[in-house]
Amino acid sequence: MAEKKWTLTDIDREIYTDQLVLGPDDVAETPDGWRVVKQTLRGGLRDNVDVVAIQNGALQLVVVPTRGMGLWRGKCEHLEIGWQSPVRGPVHPQFVPLAQPDGLGWLAGFDELLCRCGIESNGAPEFDEQGRLMHGLHGRIANLPASQVEVAIDAAAGEIRLSGIVDEARLFGAKLRLITTYATRFGSKQITIRDQIVNLSAEPVDAMLLYHVNFGPPLLVPGSRAVIPIKTMAPVNSRAAEGIDRWDVYEDGQPGFVEQCYFFQLASDPSGNTRVMLRDEEGHAAVSLCFNVQQLPCFTIWKNTQMPPDGYVTGLEPGINFPTTRSFETQHGRGRHLEGGQQLDLNLTIQVHTDARSVAEAEAEIQRLQQAVAPTIHRQPIPEWSPAD
Amino acid sequence: MAEKKWTLTDIDREIYTDQLVLGPDDVAETPDGWRVVKQTLRGGLRDNVDVVAIQNGALQLVVVPTRGMGLWRGKCEHLEIGWQSPVRGPVHPQFVPLAQPDGLGWLAGFDELLCRCGIESNGAPEFDEQGRLMHGLHGRIANLPASQVEVAIDAAAGEIRLSGIVDEARLFGAKLRLITTYATRFGSKQITIRDQIVNLSAEPVDAMLLYHVNFGPPLLVPGSRAVIPIKTMAPVNSRAAEGIDRWDVYEDGQPGFVEQCYFFQLASDPSGNTRVMLRDEEGHAAVSLCFNVQQLPCFTIWKNTQMPPDGYVTGLEPGINFPTTRSFETQHGRGRHLEGGQQLDLNLTIQVHTDARSVAEAEAEIQRLQQAVAPTIHRQPIPEWSPAD
Amino acid sequence: MAEKKWTLTDIDREIYTDQLVLGPDDVAETPDGWRVVKQTLRGGLRDNVDVVAIQNGALQLVVVPTRGMGLWRGKCEHLEIGWQSPVRGPVHPQFVPLAQPDGLGWLAGFDELLCRCGIESNGAPEFDEQGRLMHGLHGRIANLPASQVEVAIDAAAGEIRLSGIVDEARLFGAKLRLITTYATRFGSKQITIRDQIVNLSAEPVDAMLLYHVNFGPPLLVPGSRAVIPIKTMAPVNSRAAEGIDRWDVYEDGQPGFVEQCYFFQLASDPSGNTRVMLRDEEGHAAVSLCFNVQQLPCFTIWKNTQMPPDGYVTGLEPGINFPTTRSFETQHGRGRHLEGGQQLDLNLTIQVHTDARSVAEAEAEIQRLQQAVAPTIHRQPIPEWSPAD
Repeated sequence: MAEKKWTLTDIDREIYTDQLVLGPDDVAETPDGWRVVKQTLRGGLRDNVDVVAIQNGALQLVVVPTRGMGLWRGKCEHLEIGWQSPVRGPVHPQFVPLAQPDGLGWLAGFDELLCRCGIESNGAPEFDEQGRLMHGLHGRIANLPASQVEVAIDAAAGEIRLSGIVDEARLFGAKLRLITTYATRFGSKQITIRDQIVNLSAEPVDAMLLYHVNFGPPLLVPGSRAVIPIKTMAPVNSRAAEGIDRWDVYEDGQPGFVEQCYFFQLASDPSGNTRVMLRDEEGHAAVSLCFNVQQLPCFTIWKNTQMPPDGYVTGLEPGINFPTTRSFETQHGRGRHLEGGQQLDLNLTIQVHTDARSVAEAEAEIQRLQQAVAPTIHRQPIPEWSPAD
Repeated sequence: MAEKKWTLTDIDREIYTDQLVLGPDDVAETPDGWRVVKQTLRGGLRDNVDVVAIQNGALQLVVVPTRGMGLWRGKCEHLEIGWQSPVRGPVHPQFVPLAQPDGLGWLAGFDELLCRCGIESNGAPEFDEQGRLMHGLHGRIANLPASQVEVAIDAAAGEIRLSGIVDEARLFGAKLRLITTYATRFGSKQITIRDQIVNLSAEPVDAMLLYHVNFGPPLLVPGSRAVIPIKTMAPVNSRAAEGIDRWDVYEDGQPGFVEQCYFFQLASDPSGNTRVMLRDEEGHAAVSLCFNVQQLPCFTIWKNTQMPPDGYVTGLEPGINFPTTRSFETQHGRGRHLEGGQQLDLNLTIQVHTDARSVAEAEAEIQRLQQAVAPTIHRQPIPEWSPAD
Repeated sequence: MAEKKWTLTDIDREIYTDQLVLGPDDVAETPDGWRVVKQTLRGGLRDNVDVVAIQNGALQLVVVPTRGMGLWRGKCEHLEIGWQSPVRGPVHPQFVPLAQPDGLGWLAGFDELLCRCGIESNGAPEFDEQGRLMHGLHGRIANLPASQVEVAIDAAAGEIRLSGIVDEARLFGAKLRLITTYATRFGSKQITIRDQIVNLSAEPVDAMLLYHVNFGPPLLVPGSRAVIPIKTMAPVNSRAAEGIDRWDVYEDGQPGFVEQCYFFQLASDPSGNTRVMLRDEEGHAAVSLCFNVQQLPCFTIWKNTQMPPDGYVTGLEPGINFPTTRSFETQHGRGRHLEGGQQLDLNLTIQVHTDARSVAEAEAEIQRLQQAVAPTIHRQPIPEWSPAD
């Protein structure tokens, strides 16, 4: 008895499931306490947004097919994971003006725990010589709906899987496909994301992907720390350089706080595996991200400790590239060159730590990674990574 | 026995009511003839637009939660109130390209009787030095959906109330909330709008709000007159100056008529209360607006007597500010500075006059306001109010 | 016993039909094998798109009221008609950023067999002196929803008719209405499109309309040919001039192929009727378009034989004008000047040829048209038709 599957959306087969509730009664030999619920939200900015809530017995997660299969929120025991954006989402893409001439319209939809940025471009907006927007902030993928969504319950493996396909494709533009699977085991405090990026075109393209993973309270509070195994790091600009001595510690919210970003090459084990963590001051709670630096060589920390109503948040952001402009990244050989038809695997695991021992173990693992390499810390921006201020 | 309430939308509690019909049978001790109907429209540009129709026994009103709680149309006895825009709304915001580079996309949705313009900005589009749109015509609030909508029937007060909350908020942008209540008594020919603007941010902002209240036939016909108690007035530009001698009288529709705007500080009673009116030539029908100049110090008349299929319409527009650009208004100290967390009350009453006596009484009241102050009429634009032509 | 009608959408009468299936049992004295099905699609980019599928016994067609009454796909016997765009539509206009500053956002929705371009403008994007978009590629009409849709079954005439009204209108903008009827007889391999363009305004306007009729495999394959009765032709630019010797023959798909367009005045019969055709190499299958050059004086061929995943496609495009910029077309007297209230008729018939005899007959007809006039073939762009390269 392998897995049992439900198709939630499949535009080719004209399948669309408005509401679905799955639980132990639906699949033999599964434990109590899990649940998968598909809903279509109504009202406000969320009108017509599809969401899939996954409860594996320990972890609750909400995935949003309508927003590029992003991960909206999580909860583990009593620990809320995510952040409070000034906009109350999940926001339907119809209300997100990606075409806004200043390239910042993407912000109108931004409130997720995990938001993919890409795939043709991510990072800062880029304009042509006449000042016309070429690439908006963080690209299109987070505001494109999935064309296929499927949930699978695998009793043998003890796993819940949610898969989706999102295409970012048009005539005379990039033709890129995201195939994603969220997989989590019953009772586990971690979820693994397996993404494939496929260049559907017959022509080559440079793909850019960054996982914008965002945390606010209660995990992010004054005294919280980022624990990062550093190979090389540099502040992105002079503003970030001001905070270089305390880059890993979070302060209280400040009105008018101007964001600070730090770029990293991470230390890893010989296979490239690495881990980063955000933990509270006492070390009682943390979230760590595990990934491979061969897949995701560029890591960014985004510190944005504005006052809570303005968005008190930090981002831990593994990426193919750094979030500068597309052309700057391309010039510096970042982005992943994909030939026509070529595909690319990206994996990311999010683990929630809800007790001191689990936090300490993860931190110890990061320290071991760090001990293997002497960190290079640039106190000022470096030209390979940062466009001129 | 106080009020009875129905929540139509509440995104926090996941409440959304697709259809609802309320009437005397639903609330004890209410008179015959009232009705509140919630519908979701389908088809055309109105697809998925929520509307709430209120019939109080004398007045019919249609409020549009999907369009920032705007007031789409009214009717009192046989008098239609509103106008015929070239676009047949109510238009869903998904079809309104606010990001259009010329800043005029807002017009694609404009057909309401009362449309709020704001809250971060209203008035003319404003561009940065490179010609990129910063603030589109009349802002965002009219194309944002309400996140909470509630209807209350208060038998004791004899009142129908419809409330809504609309947020104009995003990371790195203004965080402004509109809390609005439309209140009307059974059998009354007036409706009172009580708005609160809340600065949700911890940081200060200049809020701009203007009520774009628009009338076409049958109230606006050749010979109709605006009756306005003037403290100071000026035409907005040389085009408006051409019409200064007949600023208060409406002519027949003209093909190619170029709009004329007049700015006013109004005369008021000692408490700041004032009234403006649009009446037909004979004085048999009118609509008047009552508000307080301490809340709404800037009043604008918009004359746009194009031919009927092009939009034969006038706007009576009480505002916090004049509808020039945001930066011009800010430079001249208009707009309302709100500290973090601060809120602001704005009240506006719309009264419909369907007989000669009621028209005459309202006009007499305006004349009394006028008698208390000698009007200053500028025949040309003044630099405090109008950017250079 | 004349026709029987069903209203699918009528915003004025608040009619909207979510699902409808009609067939021989619904109308007396009609043959077996026909069917009309109205659906609202769900999921992906097609979420909330209304489609009407017509099966007349020989021909299957899908019309999309939500996309300006465009014709999405066709099928005749086993011959698929249309093309595979990189975007998998039909795409709801909410996902089409017409306001994109580069003017190319229209491409995000482009995958139809027949797509109207216009009505205020079509062709290349046009910008103001500051580089701000004035007219996006191919205009708005294909991304506006119909406000009225009706299906009629006429047993006496043996005809299925689908009609719709789409308005492209706003205050201070063009006020243009498309009234379209698709008519096809039971068992026929052709469909006739009768369009009326109405200038709803009291002021004149230049209307622009182009039928972007697009074909991919299996009709378009290497060796397929365009058969066109030429009065005058010219390549649109130097890129197209490179291919002038083989303008009518299609090659294999090439990665990075840059599109080539050719402009034509067509030969016609004395009444102005003409025919153009796309046929396969063997002459076993073809589609021809019949129209009148007095209505549609400008004909364009668009060759875009990129590799299949990038869009292997050709367009046969009868138009009021050529698809350059609006101002260039207006300067050269193309576009149709409509006085206030004036209307314009445009007719187009699409005929599918599924056997060698039918292909040969249509080709012979085109040859007869050609024999009446000596073609003028410009090997380089001409200034009356093409802006400077």
